[in-house]
Amino acid sequence: MAKKKNVVKKSNRVKSAAESIPGQNGITMTIPDKFFLAAGHDEGMTPLNAFDNALVNAGVGNTNLMRMSSILPPGSRQIEPFKLPLGALIPVAYASKVSTIAGEVISAGVAVAVPENPKLNGLIMEYSAAGHKEEIEKIVRSMAKEGMRKRGYKLKEIISVAVQHKVENTGAAYAAVVLWW
Amino acid sequence: MAKKKNVVKKSNRVKSAAESIPGQNGITMTIPDKFFLAAGHDEGMTPLNAFDNALVNAGVGNTNLMRMSSILPPGSRQIEPFKLPLGALIPVAYASKVSTIAGEVISAGVAVAVPENPKLNGLIMEYSAAGHKEEIEKIVRSMAKEGMRKRGYKLKEIISVAVQHKVENTGAAYAAVVLWW
Amino acid sequence: MAKKKNVVKKSNRVKSAAESIPGQNGITMTIPDKFFLAAGHDEGMTPLNAFDNALVNAGVGNTNLMRMSSILPPGSRQIEPFKLPLGALIPVAYASKVSTIAGEVISAGVAVAVPENPKLNGLIMEYSAAGHKEEIEKIVRSMAKEGMRKRGYKLKEIISVAVQHKVENTGAAYAAVVLWW
Repeated sequence: MAKKKNVVKKSNRVKSAAESIPGQNGITMTIPDKFFLAAGHDEGMTPLNAFDNALVNAGVGNTNLMRMSSILPPGSRQIEPFKLPLGALIPVAYASKVSTIAGEVISAGVAVAVPENPKLNGLIMEYSAAGHKEEIEKIVRSMAKEGMRKRGYKLKEIISVAVQHKVENTGAAYAAVVLWW
Repeated sequence: MAKKKNVVKKSNRVKSAAESIPGQNGITMTIPDKFFLAAGHDEGMTPLNAFDNALVNAGVGNTNLMRMSSILPPGSRQIEPFKLPLGALIPVAYASKVSTIAGEVISAGVAVAVPENPKLNGLIMEYSAAGHKEEIEKIVRSMAKEGMRKRGYKLKEIISVAVQHKVENTGAAYAAVVLWW
Repeated sequence: MAKKKNVVKKSNRVKSAAESIPGQNGITMTIPDKFFLAAGHDEGMTPLNAFDNALVNAGVGNTNLMRMSSILPPGSRQIEPFKLPLGALIPVAYASKVSTIAGEVISAGVAVAVPENPKLNGLIMEYSAAGHKEEIEKIVRSMAKEGMRKRGYKLKEIISVAVQHKVENTGAAYAAVVLWW
């Protein structure tokens, strides 16, 4: 019990959360403080199968991804991708693109803007489109940079990944930032 | 086995966060019992940046919003908007509209239907479209009213907000109901 | 720091809900281990009201459904649908179709592929389209089968449901797999 309280208190160094009762507030109280990037692509029998196969290719296909609007919690640190618990409910920000146009090149990218001040949040941006991964990654990085500028946050660094896929019949590209605790 | 059955039975009895067993079943067991309304609008460098800027303008741009289908838990009470913990996972119902048609007026609105009986749930409706906020708010209120009528619930009141934006290059309007504990 | 690392290591070891530490890591640590299927359809005053009415018809209209990408956690067992706690945050995979074309037949279906090995995850697929429920259910079952084949998992069974609706003015069809603990 004491341990549980400790864990929650750490995540709550954020001031505003101090008003709340640790643990009592379910999904809100335990703020993720780690993240990793993932990206994959594949063909599939149907659009949803292509999407599913791209998730498997990205290493996140056997979890329950819950999409969220796209903030990096304060003080988060990047970790190596690891095998997530099967079927777990995982908060994620992602970009994806599915296409059935044979020969089309599609890409998906994500960018994480990390602030200089570790007490501030960072920002995740997602972008996907027809086009090569270099272009998409450049665009999504500029989006993340712009979001920090708009907030008046000093930028420490931008971490990004993009992946591309040349469609045969039904293809998907997928890039994600997985949050973790 | 018997224990597991007990857990399910308990959850059926849960009436508010105060009665719930803190943390026991993750996202299900702690039902939010507070809410506030938020609305914002802005321009942005890209559609997603415009959306992000509208969230910041609405005061919810530094959290991880998790969209849900749109029920007001029983006995919920409205609170003043406050600064949410940075990066927290927050359940939210929202409407948004992004447009790149210069000169277009876009609006987003949400309506919360509160039932007379505090043991029943209320209903949140979302609507966004091209048009002025007065029209959009009127429509979303009628949607919430209709959802209560359809359930056979007596209506205590409807609380709503709408916001509009006149697009310069790439604009977004955003209205949300944030659930809290 | 050492403590934080411990937490991550623990989560890496988690194999089922029974092994997890309830509540410790919010939405991730408590992996659902039960599920049921739900399906409904209805008309409505607006597209969102039709969707809402279909949810009520399916028996899940008074909860906060949080959509996720679509994995059946290992060792999950099917339970009878029951009345979910009003306003609770419920992880769900679903297909839905809304139409305003009078006379059109629309359908929504979901399929759960259960693996032979209870230590592996299963897979949920969703599909909706204009068409009769028999066709949609056949398609969604083949999608689930394909996802298991692609993973190299041996299939124990596929559990599925589909529902159809003949549109009068504004209609919706909805099929879902609800995860539970």
